[in-house]
Amino acid sequence: MSLRVLTGITTTGTPHLGNYAGAIRPAIAASRQSGTESFLFLADYHALIKCDDPARILRSRLEIAATWLAVGLDTSRVTFYRQSDIPEIPELNWLLTCVTSKGLMNRAHAYKAATDANEAASEETDAGVTMGLYCYPVLMAADILMFKAHKVPVGRDQIQHIEMARDIAQRFNNLFGNGRDLFVLPEAAIEESVATLPGLDGRKMSKSYDNTIPLFEGGAKALKAAVARIVTDSRLPGEPKDPDNSHLVTLFDAFAQPAEREAFRADLRAGLAWGEAKQRFFDVLERDIAPMREKYNDLMSKPEAIEEILQEGARKARATAAPLLAELRESVGLRQFNALPVAPVAVKKENAAPQLPVFKQYREADGRFYFKLSAADGRLLLQSQGFEQGREAGQWVGRLKTEGGAALGEVPASLGEGVEADEVAAALALFAQA
Amino acid sequence: MSLRVLTGITTTGTPHLGNYAGAIRPAIAASRQSGTESFLFLADYHALIKCDDPARILRSRLEIAATWLAVGLDTSRVTFYRQSDIPEIPELNWLLTCVTSKGLMNRAHAYKAATDANEAASEETDAGVTMGLYCYPVLMAADILMFKAHKVPVGRDQIQHIEMARDIAQRFNNLFGNGRDLFVLPEAAIEESVATLPGLDGRKMSKSYDNTIPLFEGGAKALKAAVARIVTDSRLPGEPKDPDNSHLVTLFDAFAQPAEREAFRADLRAGLAWGEAKQRFFDVLERDIAPMREKYNDLMSKPEAIEEILQEGARKARATAAPLLAELRESVGLRQFNALPVAPVAVKKENAAPQLPVFKQYREADGRFYFKLSAADGRLLLQSQGFEQGREAGQWVGRLKTEGGAALGEVPASLGEGVEADEVAAALALFAQA
Repeated sequence: MSLRVLTGITTTGTPHLGNYAGAIRPAIAASRQSGTESFLFLADYHALIKCDDPARILRSRLEIAATWLAVGLDTSRVTFYRQSDIPEIPELNWLLTCVTSKGLMNRAHAYKAATDANEAASEETDAGVTMGLYCYPVLMAADILMFKAHKVPVGRDQIQHIEMARDIAQRFNNLFGNGRDLFVLPEAAIEESVATLPGLDGRKMSKSYDNTIPLFEGGAKALKAAVARIVTDSRLPGEPKDPDNSHLVTLFDAFAQPAEREAFRADLRAGLAWGEAKQRFFDVLERDIAPMREKYNDLMSKPEAIEEILQEGARKARATAAPLLAELRESVGLRQFNALPVAPVAVKKENAAPQLPVFKQYREADGRFYFKLSAADGRLLLQSQGFEQGREAGQWVGRLKTEGGAALGEVPASLGEGVEADEVAAALALFAQA
Repeated sequence: MSLRVLTGITTTGTPHLGNYAGAIRPAIAASRQSGTESFLFLADYHALIKCDDPARILRSRLEIAATWLAVGLDTSRVTFYRQSDIPEIPELNWLLTCVTSKGLMNRAHAYKAATDANEAASEETDAGVTMGLYCYPVLMAADILMFKAHKVPVGRDQIQHIEMARDIAQRFNNLFGNGRDLFVLPEAAIEESVATLPGLDGRKMSKSYDNTIPLFEGGAKALKAAVARIVTDSRLPGEPKDPDNSHLVTLFDAFAQPAEREAFRADLRAGLAWGEAKQRFFDVLERDIAPMREKYNDLMSKPEAIEEILQEGARKARATAAPLLAELRESVGLRQFNALPVAPVAVKKENAAPQLPVFKQYREADGRFYFKLSAADGRLLLQSQGFEQGREAGQWVGRLKTEGGAALGEVPASLGEGVEADEVAAALALFAQA
């Protein structure tokens, strides 16, 4: 199994240039490495925690999907899906909820930050805290464990959530694994070297600082307008400028070739006007972004095409999720009744002696339904052929129990090795007496 | 809409005589009333909170299902399903989790009882408390709200959970209903007159007192043995007995006809031996139970037949749950992209003037895909015919945008009322310029 890497994107905003250079571009490069298998998803169940504006969630999901596709996500290599298209995730979320200790959630940083703030403001500890905020590490564990991800690239603030997912997985493995590991224990892949792009004012580019440069929103015109607002010092055209103390240069570097970077620095030192420097930055930016923007606008005008891609991704993701969930359901006791042994418990206790033989009905890998009759000591007495319907097998078991040996002439089944029809008839007679 | 009544049964035990007389028999009688629509489910997601023994959960689900069916549940009148067969429930659970305030859960009696016990024992407040215990009022709200139940028959200890479900429903309606009520506000139907049957020792019959009389388990023999263990006073045969101070009489009353009750009392006063009195109780019991036990044993030997009944119930339940969940997803912003208007936001902002006309793609109730072109002022310019595939509609929109008026001759669409082809061509030309 190759290394499986899982990344989720919360769908509450519109990607800006900082998201692109800091997260999207490197993730797409990483997904092209051989030996890794990438799962990338729109975390729209998580978005509901932070955002109760349906229109914003709807638009953000569309914009983020279109952005990743426009900048070159290869959906033949990456399983790209929307969390809310995978019903196995909320179900797993509940299974995990039942094994998670409340004490673990009390220690979550995001929750503690909220309660600390409340206490500082002399509010009730849990004022304004929703169960969504409180429970979200469990949902995040479900996101990760559902796909047996080995690595989850996260910032430092998210390490604790990966540790919680490990804790929860371990507890589930211990309780229900019967010695097997039902879940893979995930590891955080810390992104130390994430190039956080400066914003217009030189601080980290972030919506909360209102200093972002748009990626596609508003087109080339808005991009150019934003670049014009990048803060510089007040040196006049012709005056030498210090490229090492300009975040315009940091921004330029993130999109330019090495030779262009050199030239940019040299020209600034030689007195290049800030206005012209910004034009040059805009030009290298636009060289990268214009073709992607065209794809983006095209995708945004065809939501149904994006929907189709996400549906295909959901099919791929569910092909992994559904068999694991079936195994987990089985392990906690939620399996269907078809495959149960037909152990007549009530009857057995009442007639402690003689011990009844046991009918078992089951389904084989060929999809057909079978039954067999074993003696109380385990020897095979009768083995049926395969039936199309479980009901047919059940009907034969019923007839054998009520009619006993008389039904043996008709039943489509063969005797166990070294077993005589008389022995089977005698065994069946016990059911009639019971 | 008839009155919808919903009842859940946690699947962790084996039904005993007290469950039968106190809960099962009256629920089945109630389900036969006209004007009510009953939903009855095996609450096996809830069972996981209390029980991490898969075999016990598995067996309990089977025994409880077989019991209800054996005692006369009419599945043509009652929607009878297993909670874990309805994936809509855990998904709704998450939607509700996001709108539930943590403070509400802090006040839940079951949680408070656990923390009070911890504090009394000088343990950490949340010692041994799982997130399952803490979150279960939200899951219970999902169970109820999913089916728009009006009434939920509960004991006094459960009233708070129904109130919480109302709170959560109201908050969701307020946040996302846009003036509509997405959920019905459920009401608790308090079972004041529940006949709690006494157990062997006269206290309420309960597994926790170890004083139960089995219903089907162990057959007639075990039933008789249990009846023999009912505690009486030490009056000898021939001595007059006080029927008003004997829980054997209370038990007898629950299964006997009025005339039999009278006779039983008179005979006890006249000195009937306790041994004979117990035999008489066993006889009236067995008269009721024997035919049901036969059905029960038959069902227990055909788990696949029970499975089929539950699957049919799940289909019925999901036919109610799925459309509501789709509506809820839409209301919080999780709908699919197919039906989105194709609003070229990015382009629009960049070219604030002239205002672009708007293409809209959508799907009609006939299942076919359509598009239309409206002028910036909202007038209909072009209305397509219906297409089998969303993609076809998208392709025509694409051609109209790139080829402009030239494609108008071929496009399977008609002009809006009073609209000339030239106007449409001019409108389309704006896309090429954008």
